[in-house]
Amino acid sequence: MIPARAKRRISVAVIGASAADKGTADIAYDTGFRIAKEGWTLICGGLGGVMEHVSKGAFDAGGQTVGILPGYAHDDANEYIKLPIPTGLGHARNAIVASSANGIIAIGGEYGTLSEIALGLKMGKPVVGLSINFDIKGVLPASTPEEAISILKDHLA
Amino acid sequence: MIPARAKRRISVAVIGASAADKGTADIAYDTGFRIAKEGWTLICGGLGGVMEHVSKGAFDAGGQTVGILPGYAHDDANEYIKLPIPTGLGHARNAIVASSANGIIAIGGEYGTLSEIALGLKMGKPVVGLSINFDIKGVLPASTPEEAISILKDHLA
Amino acid sequence: MIPARAKRRISVAVIGASAADKGTADIAYDTGFRIAKEGWTLICGGLGGVMEHVSKGAFDAGGQTVGILPGYAHDDANEYIKLPIPTGLGHARNAIVASSANGIIAIGGEYGTLSEIALGLKMGKPVVGLSINFDIKGVLPASTPEEAISILKDHLA
Amino acid sequence: MIPARAKRRISVAVIGASAADKGTADIAYDTGFRIAKEGWTLICGGLGGVMEHVSKGAFDAGGQTVGILPGYAHDDANEYIKLPIPTGLGHARNAIVASSANGIIAIGGEYGTLSEIALGLKMGKPVVGLSINFDIKGVLPASTPEEAISILKDHLA
Repeated sequence: MIPARAKRRISVAVIGASAADKGTADIAYDTGFRIAKEGWTLICGGLGGVMEHVSKGAFDAGGQTVGILPGYAHDDANEYIKLPIPTGLGHARNAIVASSANGIIAIGGEYGTLSEIALGLKMGKPVVGLSINFDIKGVLPASTPEEAISILKDHLA
Repeated sequence: MIPARAKRRISVAVIGASAADKGTADIAYDTGFRIAKEGWTLICGGLGGVMEHVSKGAFDAGGQTVGILPGYAHDDANEYIKLPIPTGLGHARNAIVASSANGIIAIGGEYGTLSEIALGLKMGKPVVGLSINFDIKGVLPASTPEEAISILKDHLA
Repeated sequence: MIPARAKRRISVAVIGASAADKGTADIAYDTGFRIAKEGWTLICGGLGGVMEHVSKGAFDAGGQTVGILPGYAHDDANEYIKLPIPTGLGHARNAIVASSANGIIAIGGEYGTLSEIALGLKMGKPVVGLSINFDIKGVLPASTPEEAISILKDHLA
Repeated sequence: MIPARAKRRISVAVIGASAADKGTADIAYDTGFRIAKEGWTLICGGLGGVMEHVSKGAFDAGGQTVGILPGYAHDDANEYIKLPIPTGLGHARNAIVASSANGIIAIGGEYGTLSEIALGLKMGKPVVGLSINFDIKGVLPASTPEEAISILKDHLA
């Protein structure tokens, strides 16, 4: 007898700013693509910039893409988000992005990203930093999306 | 050229108490089954009772099942939840169950359910009541899961 | 030795719609006035309608007035709120209005009020209804502000 | 005619870890004392460590002390909190500590504090750092409580 229990995919949150230069956009896309190829669910803030590029990467690889939105409109989500979760929580939605994931990858980022890094570390989750703008003890540094995935895989196994 | 935009499924939240008698459990199961057969995503509070029976129904029909959890543990979700969203928000997570769905079906229920009915109506969402314990103006009454789905379909088309 | 412990005032939340006719406004004002005269802290949603009239009553009686606001601007609070608490939580701030109070008085009200009644009951708090528009089991009915205060006093003693 | 409008005190949030060594405790106490002497309302997380010492300082100076609590129990607040605001929001309450204040002073601190610093900066509030453990661009550095108050005063005038 096979148990009915849902085989749960690992959920990985990618956090980053709502604007992204070309280099950061490429890193985000590649990270999303690789997350989906691992069979992991991508969780992000659902809006533009890093959030959009990582969503597109995961989308193109056929993965599940979840956007935890700060507002109430499903249509605020970027076009690669398959499951929008409008929360209406404003900045407090950052805590939900962190709490809903098994592990976190931060790419670049400003203060919003920093708050999610801090909340993730506070919650005891593995947080990988990819070219992030902050030097925070406890963040696991990675030089490439490939390495970021590899580090998370070790921590989530 | 076909645009890359994610084809978003409609999300329907089913709300109800964490305990369910046999009759309510059957109604919940049937409702979840039919939601999945429509190709809709099931959103619920992710725990036991009505939440578990509706999740099992959607799960058995091969659908997507999302559990918006009040605590921080992914494993708090019942075994038919494919995507747990631990929020740590306690009672405030009820507002997220309502905001994340396009439409809502309430089954039986106590005060927690009532708060979600009220928040759903406040947010302007269609709320269908299936053997609910409250008489709230604005709730769309249904006698069977089949009818509940049919009413929602009219409102979400 | 006298202990340093803060003598905490009882906090009472008054909930009601953001619009109020003359009769409801008078009831709200009188309720706020009496809450302050008891030495209780008034908590409310901080905006207009019932929230404003109850705040004015408590303000005129020299009481403490706290507004748990849905947005981020301190200035969203009505002019009788001495302590604005902007939350940015949107509808989820209703749960904070309920959780922050020791007891609740509902006056009139629409769906937002109903959600707070339900959340208050779910949290096990005494909820008094003054000319409310819903018939919810567990709500303690009162005919006048004086009676509402008296009922709460019995439950909070 | 004097307008009825509530004269609102400035609210200042002090954030810091739930444990504090002697030196940090003294800094926190002095900061709370000075905040109250300015006539400002102290907002904090309401628990122990830096939160308790800053509350005691403000309490001893006769000030208003507000504790935004992560749980649901009023009694979780330390004994110098006059107005407990239990939220039940868990880690997401950090966003409310930041949003409810006009300005923020961080003392020492770990990841929770860092998340509040980041959220405060994201919300565009002045954030002063007193012997904090992080080097975050945008934080206004102060060497003493006196200087921290002075910096905030300049920004909130």
